[in-house]
Amino acid sequence: MAKKEISQAVIQRLPRYYRYLEDLMDQGIERISSSELSKRMKLTASQIRQDLNNFGGFGQQGYGYNIKNLHDEIAKILNIDNEHEMIIVGAGHLGQALANYTNFRKRGFIVKAIFDKDPSLVGVKVGDIEIQSMDTLDETIKGSTIKMAAVCIPKEAAVKVVEQLIEDGIVGIWNFAHVDLEVPENIVIENVHLSESLMRLSYRMGEALED
Amino acid sequence: MAKKEISQAVIQRLPRYYRYLEDLMDQGIERISSSELSKRMKLTASQIRQDLNNFGGFGQQGYGYNIKNLHDEIAKILNIDNEHEMIIVGAGHLGQALANYTNFRKRGFIVKAIFDKDPSLVGVKVGDIEIQSMDTLDETIKGSTIKMAAVCIPKEAAVKVVEQLIEDGIVGIWNFAHVDLEVPENIVIENVHLSESLMRLSYRMGEALED
Repeated sequence: MAKKEISQAVIQRLPRYYRYLEDLMDQGIERISSSELSKRMKLTASQIRQDLNNFGGFGQQGYGYNIKNLHDEIAKILNIDNEHEMIIVGAGHLGQALANYTNFRKRGFIVKAIFDKDPSLVGVKVGDIEIQSMDTLDETIKGSTIKMAAVCIPKEAAVKVVEQLIEDGIVGIWNFAHVDLEVPENIVIENVHLSESLMRLSYRMGEALED
Repeated sequence: MAKKEISQAVIQRLPRYYRYLEDLMDQGIERISSSELSKRMKLTASQIRQDLNNFGGFGQQGYGYNIKNLHDEIAKILNIDNEHEMIIVGAGHLGQALANYTNFRKRGFIVKAIFDKDPSLVGVKVGDIEIQSMDTLDETIKGSTIKMAAVCIPKEAAVKVVEQLIEDGIVGIWNFAHVDLEVPENIVIENVHLSESLMRLSYRMGEALED
């Protein structure tokens, strides 16, 4: 089945399905019914059946879903059935937090290098990786198989660094800088704007405390 | 104007408006037309006019929007026109990154305390705050004016800690644990599931590299 046939709404939900299926696998559970999965995920059973039918109907009436099959199929669709080499630009607390997330490695996201412009950080180890100088960014990426970069630097610096990353061959940017980056069409940006998330929380708290 | 009249879609966009208006203010710009704002934000001018009309129509034909007025009005709606005291549970890299974000303080989110169960972290300073033992969580929150908590601990521990936070009087939870927390109706959760974001990036890179 071609990926293009799956709607964006389903794609948005897929990582969450994946997380639940992974948890079930970790618990040693092999099969689950759509009604049981719906209880856990707070979706209707029919929503789940509809969503998962997109991937070839792994559910069998009366038997439920084979968790491992479904998990592997979703991994394939999410393009996490193979390894992704990534670099992290910015070795502040956030960059180091990302470098240390064991969950990412488990899912095949391998941090190959971490960079910072602060000379006092260069050479410092984060896990088993030494922080490199920004001067070595080009030579590390160019001609390598690294296609993914997490950007954890202030917005003022981010725009130029991202241009450089794209020139060097990076295709996917995980952007934590508080700026909407303009990139060519063939480049993918996933933004994590933490302060916007915090503002949404604040808005909803205002509503909750009002009620 | 009652908050309830504003649609969820507009609310979702508000933090981004706020960020752009803040940038414009930082640049010393006082007025902006909807067409200029639309160019910067990559929204249509009519979308912007429609959105901002929700807040009393600050735009004047031929004069554009008064940036400061609009900024302050959006701050009021987002409930960030006053200070929010927050605590951070978990002083790993992510917790420390959040504690150090000067942007949050600028917007009135004041970190009052940071907690960790690791005895070797207790007493360590993050900015000007000393990491406290989890044993002091209850006494810090109960009877205080703190209503917001960022949860930066592994999912296994998060469920119980969040129950405790709610008992102590926390209303808004900024959840970084990889778990969907079940909370009473009057409690607000804003999830930041970083690994889901990373999977979306991976999916979209798969599409981009295919094209």
